[in-house]
Amino acid sequence: MKRKLRMGMVGGGPGAFIGDVHRKAACLDGGVELVAGCFSRTPEKSREMADTLYLDKKRCYDSVDAMIAGELALPVGKRVDFVSIVTPNDGHFPIAKAFLEAGFHVVLDKPMTFDLKQAIALRKIVKKSGKVLALTHNYTGYPMVKLARDLVKQGKIGKVLKIIVQYPQVINPIERNGAKQAEWRTDPKRSGAAGCMGDIGTHAENLAEYITGLRMTEICADLGTMVEGRKLDDDGNCLVHFENGARGLLFASQVCVGELNALRISVHGTGGGLSWQQEEPNTLSVYGGDGTILTYRRGTDAVGAISPAAARATRLPFGHPEAFYEAFANIYKNATDAIRATIDGREPGELELDFPNVEDGIRGMQFIETVVASKGQWISFPKG
Amino acid sequence: MKRKLRMGMVGGGPGAFIGDVHRKAACLDGGVELVAGCFSRTPEKSREMADTLYLDKKRCYDSVDAMIAGELALPVGKRVDFVSIVTPNDGHFPIAKAFLEAGFHVVLDKPMTFDLKQAIALRKIVKKSGKVLALTHNYTGYPMVKLARDLVKQGKIGKVLKIIVQYPQVINPIERNGAKQAEWRTDPKRSGAAGCMGDIGTHAENLAEYITGLRMTEICADLGTMVEGRKLDDDGNCLVHFENGARGLLFASQVCVGELNALRISVHGTGGGLSWQQEEPNTLSVYGGDGTILTYRRGTDAVGAISPAAARATRLPFGHPEAFYEAFANIYKNATDAIRATIDGREPGELELDFPNVEDGIRGMQFIETVVASKGQWISFPKG
Amino acid sequence: MKRKLRMGMVGGGPGAFIGDVHRKAACLDGGVELVAGCFSRTPEKSREMADTLYLDKKRCYDSVDAMIAGELALPVGKRVDFVSIVTPNDGHFPIAKAFLEAGFHVVLDKPMTFDLKQAIALRKIVKKSGKVLALTHNYTGYPMVKLARDLVKQGKIGKVLKIIVQYPQVINPIERNGAKQAEWRTDPKRSGAAGCMGDIGTHAENLAEYITGLRMTEICADLGTMVEGRKLDDDGNCLVHFENGARGLLFASQVCVGELNALRISVHGTGGGLSWQQEEPNTLSVYGGDGTILTYRRGTDAVGAISPAAARATRLPFGHPEAFYEAFANIYKNATDAIRATIDGREPGELELDFPNVEDGIRGMQFIETVVASKGQWISFPKG
Amino acid sequence: MKRKLRMGMVGGGPGAFIGDVHRKAACLDGGVELVAGCFSRTPEKSREMADTLYLDKKRCYDSVDAMIAGELALPVGKRVDFVSIVTPNDGHFPIAKAFLEAGFHVVLDKPMTFDLKQAIALRKIVKKSGKVLALTHNYTGYPMVKLARDLVKQGKIGKVLKIIVQYPQVINPIERNGAKQAEWRTDPKRSGAAGCMGDIGTHAENLAEYITGLRMTEICADLGTMVEGRKLDDDGNCLVHFENGARGLLFASQVCVGELNALRISVHGTGGGLSWQQEEPNTLSVYGGDGTILTYRRGTDAVGAISPAAARATRLPFGHPEAFYEAFANIYKNATDAIRATIDGREPGELELDFPNVEDGIRGMQFIETVVASKGQWISFPKG
Repeated sequence: MKRKLRMGMVGGGPGAFIGDVHRKAACLDGGVELVAGCFSRTPEKSREMADTLYLDKKRCYDSVDAMIAGELALPVGKRVDFVSIVTPNDGHFPIAKAFLEAGFHVVLDKPMTFDLKQAIALRKIVKKSGKVLALTHNYTGYPMVKLARDLVKQGKIGKVLKIIVQYPQVINPIERNGAKQAEWRTDPKRSGAAGCMGDIGTHAENLAEYITGLRMTEICADLGTMVEGRKLDDDGNCLVHFENGARGLLFASQVCVGELNALRISVHGTGGGLSWQQEEPNTLSVYGGDGTILTYRRGTDAVGAISPAAARATRLPFGHPEAFYEAFANIYKNATDAIRATIDGREPGELELDFPNVEDGIRGMQFIETVVASKGQWISFPKG
Repeated sequence: MKRKLRMGMVGGGPGAFIGDVHRKAACLDGGVELVAGCFSRTPEKSREMADTLYLDKKRCYDSVDAMIAGELALPVGKRVDFVSIVTPNDGHFPIAKAFLEAGFHVVLDKPMTFDLKQAIALRKIVKKSGKVLALTHNYTGYPMVKLARDLVKQGKIGKVLKIIVQYPQVINPIERNGAKQAEWRTDPKRSGAAGCMGDIGTHAENLAEYITGLRMTEICADLGTMVEGRKLDDDGNCLVHFENGARGLLFASQVCVGELNALRISVHGTGGGLSWQQEEPNTLSVYGGDGTILTYRRGTDAVGAISPAAARATRLPFGHPEAFYEAFANIYKNATDAIRATIDGREPGELELDFPNVEDGIRGMQFIETVVASKGQWISFPKG
Repeated sequence: MKRKLRMGMVGGGPGAFIGDVHRKAACLDGGVELVAGCFSRTPEKSREMADTLYLDKKRCYDSVDAMIAGELALPVGKRVDFVSIVTPNDGHFPIAKAFLEAGFHVVLDKPMTFDLKQAIALRKIVKKSGKVLALTHNYTGYPMVKLARDLVKQGKIGKVLKIIVQYPQVINPIERNGAKQAEWRTDPKRSGAAGCMGDIGTHAENLAEYITGLRMTEICADLGTMVEGRKLDDDGNCLVHFENGARGLLFASQVCVGELNALRISVHGTGGGLSWQQEEPNTLSVYGGDGTILTYRRGTDAVGAISPAAARATRLPFGHPEAFYEAFANIYKNATDAIRATIDGREPGELELDFPNVEDGIRGMQFIETVVASKGQWISFPKG
Repeated sequence: MKRKLRMGMVGGGPGAFIGDVHRKAACLDGGVELVAGCFSRTPEKSREMADTLYLDKKRCYDSVDAMIAGELALPVGKRVDFVSIVTPNDGHFPIAKAFLEAGFHVVLDKPMTFDLKQAIALRKIVKKSGKVLALTHNYTGYPMVKLARDLVKQGKIGKVLKIIVQYPQVINPIERNGAKQAEWRTDPKRSGAAGCMGDIGTHAENLAEYITGLRMTEICADLGTMVEGRKLDDDGNCLVHFENGARGLLFASQVCVGELNALRISVHGTGGGLSWQQEEPNTLSVYGGDGTILTYRRGTDAVGAISPAAARATRLPFGHPEAFYEAFANIYKNATDAIRATIDGREPGELELDFPNVEDGIRGMQFIETVVASKGQWISFPKG
């Protein structure tokens, strides 16, 4: 396929943080162009956004239905190949369903759906559609996270015994001032059953399972609402058991004043350990049984020798740091490579399929439902 | 009192790690001299140690009873002023009791006693004796920990909302090879009800309560024994509630290969946060609500302006790092200053009394009994 | 002007590192599209590149002359607005001259020209053309570098006394294997009088002068060729005097095995100091006279309050790290905003003009000629 | 020899920083006791100090002559074994000479003498005396510095190409207020020809030569006096050539506001590099040719396997940090072990002789004279 992939977007209107990230990430490598969108439920806002993006006015739509109809009306060689859905959580399922059933590939922001039931339903829809669904658990796009996964997979730290994943952050109570994102994130009707644990706790869960290849089996969760007046949890501490007998801790918090976006993970095994932190993403520390710490740095020979996935997720030479956009772009890179393969009738390769999919989305929804149901007691993850 | 304090020691024979630390810490400032001891239950080992220490042979005793009798037989101006007890945990209570009742001040290694009952009994004995009892929860001897406490006390981070204290470590399963310390630490008859949680978990508990001034009220603990064949926990994860409504996490582990002695604490309040780590003890990071991090460095004007206790705990000018021995020596410095005051008939001042005492020891034993009893359920701390 | 700016490129063929960076950086914010190019002196390579980039074949040119003629033949509303020149150094001057004189704006990779004489000639050409010339000393595009400059400008560290700028790196001697970039960089006929000092030393010089606002007045330089067989310096150490009496050190090296791209700067003044390092670009440390270190983090209120330029150079919220591409894109952002202003007949504002220009390019060439002429003796910068 | 070594001290009166460090360092391991001294040229101050130290009044002397006479009058089994000289620089030579010639071993603070002539004279005196002379270039007492030296010696970083040693510090201009130490350090009649370069520059020189085993052969130095009214340099920048062709930079400064005692060194060779910094002394970073950084941590198996000298210089288990006092104590440990050996008629072993001696002192004085004579020109080190 010798052309750019054509991307549409739902959500991501003026002032939306994550919509802009999706656009930059998708287009970074020059293989995707944004050609259509329905950026807001308010048509004027949608058009304002289209204008800002120098989009063809005819492809700025007032509704998802109009967008699907409009794109299907175009010749195959013009219509969007995939759509990125970056609306509040309650929109994810119906919009994804509509596009998948209309024959479009989908990239979806996380958490995947409003609840677990929808998530399981979405799995069937994806399967039936034969289309690609990618979920932007973007932190697994970092090359050093891929290296961590590959080190664990290759047995470099032995049998995993302990996993500690932390995600402290602060969200000021700006939802009361009507700030766009904070507003819906703290509204249970739009966000779902969890607040902080849905928004960032699922990233922590996804990261831990991605790196270790181990599933959480049961959790004892202590959720709290520390900022008065909030309707959802803004802090959650969890004891966690993993399928191989490993124990761990997971916490996510949006009341940690002074912490910015400090996702961190440590994994310890019988033969060593490793630790990574999102705010300094270009390095990965590996602890040896002899007391040394071996720091891998993105882009070096040492990384490439262990992890083809990390090497593939690297654009710049060593010492020229990459960061959040580039990691996000790696989700898009792999997802769009898989979309290209599907369009071309090829089976995507393993490296191309290295992006979060509908199964990861189900895990995330299971996590949310489990921690919300725990109420301080041990509770098992639902099957499925 | 124009003389050195005379110190005796029980325990701390050849090869014992912590006994040597006590001796160096006590003598660092030149105000204490070791003059007597019963270093081992094996008389030859005790004498070997006395020899190594250039001690007068006559004051090397074969038993605690002999030591007490021998010292009491000396004129007041010769006999030891205080005794440091550094035996395995099961010896702490009877030996401390004997010395206190014989009129000697006592410095005791932690955890204070074998169980909570003994701890409560010891409180009465101390009170009745009028003597000083100091407990070497040495990590609160670090100047930057004192600064942290004073910052919290002065309201610099607002109301405390979240406390995360971590103590990962690795103890290789060398108890099977008969290594002295590992042997008794993993033996429930000598160590007490907890392994890892007693050995290092109590340090984490003590540090959290010292810095925040808040007591833990309930805990949900998940203890595990990860190294096969151990009889006591070697890993423990706890959800914690504090008296003011703050939530937190405490974990201690001796199966984290590659972690050395990585006690770390973060405290977040409504107005900011702070974080400190034992392996880089000369700095304290304070997180501001505006996104800055202010790093205080030991020995600087900025520290002294906030914390007289930190300034007092500082020997070297800024940039000349201090570390473990010096922090340990700070416990001794304050405790021996309080002992001097008591001998001189003075009331010790507030700064002199800044060392862990019998109340801290009771907290530690309450912590141990609580986490052992929890078995994955929420459980309240015992009163008292 | 309601449209994307149209960009052309000269150089940046298959395998070229910096050409790809220019393309990604220019297009990151969605306001620029690459529409034409002459990517290599070998026409087939140029076409291969155009193909990779999904470019219109008609706008892939075989020579600079053909490109200028071809673009001028297009209607104004189609032809490129500016051209990015990313060839080896010896091409910079003639190509920039040709485009400027043909009425195009120019973005130029550094160092600006082959020698100082060309640099001074280029100044005249730029002035006469009325066009924008931007030079990609990309490290000044980092927000925290802009914050550093503004802190110094606002007197926060007092009078500058000492400046230390270091740029250790390693370039393996791959030029002997014919690697594209290494090859020309070590060839005096293509690279100019300096090797390492031209390639990365000029970045160090530019960074120091940008942050401090002080010009170097004299230098004593010790250049060396450590890897046998190289024709140009691969290591250089300089003593530096600045116009206000400040003293400093500048070193750049391409023989520091294990250092990746470790540009670092420290500035000390009578009232404090600051330090920044390229490999962890999201923070800036400011040293206070009271011994504290205040760490600013990109995207926070604290940064925006001091430096509008840093705030403007920020895309992501705090804690979501930005890095090399984004800093590079900031040079393009300001340069293309200035180009838009010029096209619209507006005078660009101060913040828009915050990118390296022909004067910075002249400083760089003066630096190169000075260090090459020094030969271990103190030597003054040329006037002009 | 089954007894503590007896130590005397000259200098180190009330308020003196380094005298107290010497006392604590010498006594840390319990093998030395301070029994005599002449702590000040003012007898009352000397007695005040003796009193503070609980010393026998009879062994507090009013002059060096009285001290030598007094100690010689004691039976051999009572008199001091060695004396530590911690006076201002101008006192070092005559006092050391007097004690050596009277048959006492000597520990001397750095720089060794007032000028090079004295240093060379001292070498003869030491040789003739058959006594030990140790010089407290204390930074080479750090275990990780010993590890660094051994890694270089074992060829782990290949042939050394580049050495960068930095020692930024700030000394506030408190000499004008009569502060004891600052006063004499800035007085050329007491301090010698150099200020900052003598005080801390010699430490930097010593550290570089110790780790690399390479001698500096020529220097181009730019010394400055940045604080008005000072009579000696308070800032110095040097280009350095080493005997094997390696190039380097050395700077020392006492005008770097916010830097505390930030001695740092990086060494790069053909096969890798290493870096260490005094303010975080428990780790050493080793850069690999494959882009990894291997961090060694004091007390671990990995360190002991490479460096017996580092293992010997370690008291505490890994993770329990050691710092300034302990490093200083390592100089004393080796020196006093050598003194014991000499007393016992044994030849000290290689590990015991691992302390700075008269040859290092001569190098330091050569360094001072070279940098002072340079005046911005390249100049060779004197022979000898």
